[in-house]
Amino acid sequence: MTATTWHAAHAWLPDGWAEDVTLVAEAGRFTSITVGDRGEAATTPGESIVELTGVVLPGFANAHSHAFHRALRGRTHGEGGSFWTWREAMYDLAARLDLDTYRAMATATYAEMALAGVTAVGEFHYLHHGPHGQYDDPNAVAAVLVEAASAAGIRLTLLDTCYLAGGLGPNGHLPLDPVQKRFSDGDAAGWRRRFTLLADRFDPTPSRTGAVRVGAAIHSVRAVAATDIPTVVTAAEGRPLHVHLSEQPSENSACQSYYGVTPTTLLGRSGVLGPTTTAVHATHLTDDDISLLGASSTFVCFCPTTERDLADGIGPARRLLDSGSQPCLGSDQHAVTDLLEEARALEMNERLASGERGRFELPQLVKALTVNGQRSIGWDDAGELRVGARADLVAVRRDSRRTAGSLAAQIVMSASAADVDTVIVDGRTVVEGGRHVLGNVGGLLQSSIEPLWR
Amino acid sequence: MTATTWHAAHAWLPDGWAEDVTLVAEAGRFTSITVGDRGEAATTPGESIVELTGVVLPGFANAHSHAFHRALRGRTHGEGGSFWTWREAMYDLAARLDLDTYRAMATATYAEMALAGVTAVGEFHYLHHGPHGQYDDPNAVAAVLVEAASAAGIRLTLLDTCYLAGGLGPNGHLPLDPVQKRFSDGDAAGWRRRFTLLADRFDPTPSRTGAVRVGAAIHSVRAVAATDIPTVVTAAEGRPLHVHLSEQPSENSACQSYYGVTPTTLLGRSGVLGPTTTAVHATHLTDDDISLLGASSTFVCFCPTTERDLADGIGPARRLLDSGSQPCLGSDQHAVTDLLEEARALEMNERLASGERGRFELPQLVKALTVNGQRSIGWDDAGELRVGARADLVAVRRDSRRTAGSLAAQIVMSASAADVDTVIVDGRTVVEGGRHVLGNVGGLLQSSIEPLWR
Repeated sequence: MTATTWHAAHAWLPDGWAEDVTLVAEAGRFTSITVGDRGEAATTPGESIVELTGVVLPGFANAHSHAFHRALRGRTHGEGGSFWTWREAMYDLAARLDLDTYRAMATATYAEMALAGVTAVGEFHYLHHGPHGQYDDPNAVAAVLVEAASAAGIRLTLLDTCYLAGGLGPNGHLPLDPVQKRFSDGDAAGWRRRFTLLADRFDPTPSRTGAVRVGAAIHSVRAVAATDIPTVVTAAEGRPLHVHLSEQPSENSACQSYYGVTPTTLLGRSGVLGPTTTAVHATHLTDDDISLLGASSTFVCFCPTTERDLADGIGPARRLLDSGSQPCLGSDQHAVTDLLEEARALEMNERLASGERGRFELPQLVKALTVNGQRSIGWDDAGELRVGARADLVAVRRDSRRTAGSLAAQIVMSASAADVDTVIVDGRTVVEGGRHVLGNVGGLLQSSIEPLWR
Repeated sequence: MTATTWHAAHAWLPDGWAEDVTLVAEAGRFTSITVGDRGEAATTPGESIVELTGVVLPGFANAHSHAFHRALRGRTHGEGGSFWTWREAMYDLAARLDLDTYRAMATATYAEMALAGVTAVGEFHYLHHGPHGQYDDPNAVAAVLVEAASAAGIRLTLLDTCYLAGGLGPNGHLPLDPVQKRFSDGDAAGWRRRFTLLADRFDPTPSRTGAVRVGAAIHSVRAVAATDIPTVVTAAEGRPLHVHLSEQPSENSACQSYYGVTPTTLLGRSGVLGPTTTAVHATHLTDDDISLLGASSTFVCFCPTTERDLADGIGPARRLLDSGSQPCLGSDQHAVTDLLEEARALEMNERLASGERGRFELPQLVKALTVNGQRSIGWDDAGELRVGARADLVAVRRDSRRTAGSLAAQIVMSASAADVDTVIVDGRTVVEGGRHVLGNVGGLLQSSIEPLWR
């Protein structure tokens, strides 16, 4: 296999910013990274070097995605309401999707992510079944998502979600409503059976060479009873485990009423928290919750553009980091698909809440965008420009109207997804000159989303 | 003069969204706007119709700009700090500018605004003098800004700012520091003399036909003593009057300590508030402040991307509207130049603070972006697609990866400045196919900003 060599004027290496960086990859991994020699040491005479535009960062991870929510963008703002009325629109959409329409829109959605610099996505996947029950292939929808990510050129972590109850009331969990039946496997054993088939099919341990990983997810303490949680924890062993946590105050009050503890405490008692687990949102937390998450080294995934859009509020991101929880980022419902904006919003939300600037150091934002997110979704060998790591990189323009004048080291504070010029995933070029290999992604989104609403 | 005819699939008219809209302009004003006839009624045979891409909105107003702050983008995030440490960086920059460097960077900055759909900018202009005192032409810097806006193709309202003191301490106003001397005319009479020359030169009453308007500004209660405020109010009569208000809590506490009242009350007593006045930021207000601003029909200008960046906080935008104050929008320090993002952030900030969605109806956001802002900066004949109004329009793509799938009526919730396809100002095409008539605006920004920091 031939090597590819890239050169970058500025690049973010594990120990900080460097200038004049030459990167060589072979078989999808970096084999050499050198600083200050214009690529001369790394190349043999006659070999060509690809000059990258702008500032080069490791591949971004989108650690929390519900791909089908992309079809809600620009369609849920007509009548006010709350998180809960938004959810009605989302259920309406979920009821409309079939395998073909989901494949088309997920491909376009993942391609939009690639254009934003995403090299790996964590798909919090709960739309398991068809409108009339389980498909002949019980993992038919997951298989569609695998095809979509492959077509879009990014890695996929299927966070296969256990979703068994319709909510949590004062006397316990509620029955599923009709749409939610597409999310449920009936009981925890049913979820586990399907999950085992999925993992064996797409990510059999210890095989870890491909572009698909399987992890598990507990939808929330609303949708999974405490007695069912250990089944998911056991099944997930050694794999990423994700859970929605305290996105809305009403989850906390329902949990407190029924269990007498916060959702974080409940998850802690159930063995969920730990260094391969990610708590998504983590918006409304007590001091004890923050300590529990930090002490267990649980990742926290913030989705700031969603948390704005759904009126969730601002989570205690900085305090969680101080406590020991590494932050990562997700675009969640994809009201916006711009991971640079998510990273910036992590800091901006802190500024709004605290009245102080510089709540995060910029390297912490870059880590949230890259290595933390990759690890959160099980790609421990990605998210850093280092020899041996997967050869992902994102080149961000410094000469656009948005970024012109900015310092290279502060690019994360001025660039947007529109400034992503080149994206390399496992050594393969997925985006070049701001264009995805699939061509017109806006057109793919239009042709796959608009028919859903007719 | 020949007429120009445009056709739009969707357009925002004063009474709401319309489909199949034909707009005709002559001599910079709309002469005909018809719905539903594919332009046939409006054109004579053989005349061509320009088909606009996407959704058509009236011209956006950027009601609060400090053009030179654009050079700070991506350069102030290295060391944390606060609003006040940010201000040190801004003063460093102010000390570096001369007429030629300011002309070049302001031209590029206004061109970037045009690309974002801005047809008129309110320049809160306080960098009046040279490093060694007044220029031979006391309004030399203002003249540079007039040239810059003209070159960039947008209208300019010079909000000529009175700035006399270095701050407000417990015992009264503080002396100017060396950089601030470039902002000051020595005393209120000095400001008034220069202001009168400026108004007579660029916007003599009652002449109101051009692309430059002159208004006045009181920098803040920190920089102008109560005894000097009436001079500005009198000079501004009949013209827009702007003032920074309660952006930071410390302004409130200093005002309360020295005057025994809030800044809003002080401005109210001094005759500042009213329907031709705009309070900028209005972040930290009491209930009485909100009532005073609303009862006087004072505009409030929010600058959400700046208020995030500078850790100002979230102002009570919805309560101000309910009280009688119309909101408008500004990009202020231009950490971001995207008025669609400012409009969206008005709603998103409310969601974060209230836990509710739909705090503003979408038409209220469009009004803030267009007609309210145009009126706030003195363009009472702009910001609406109606016969007799200035022929400004902004066409926003619905087929980009950002906007694909969104409803036309919700475009303000999904589009960014990168989706602005066409901008017409006073009947002239300034942006077409997403390109400014000046060409590569990123390059203009780079070449004018980077030398400032060497």
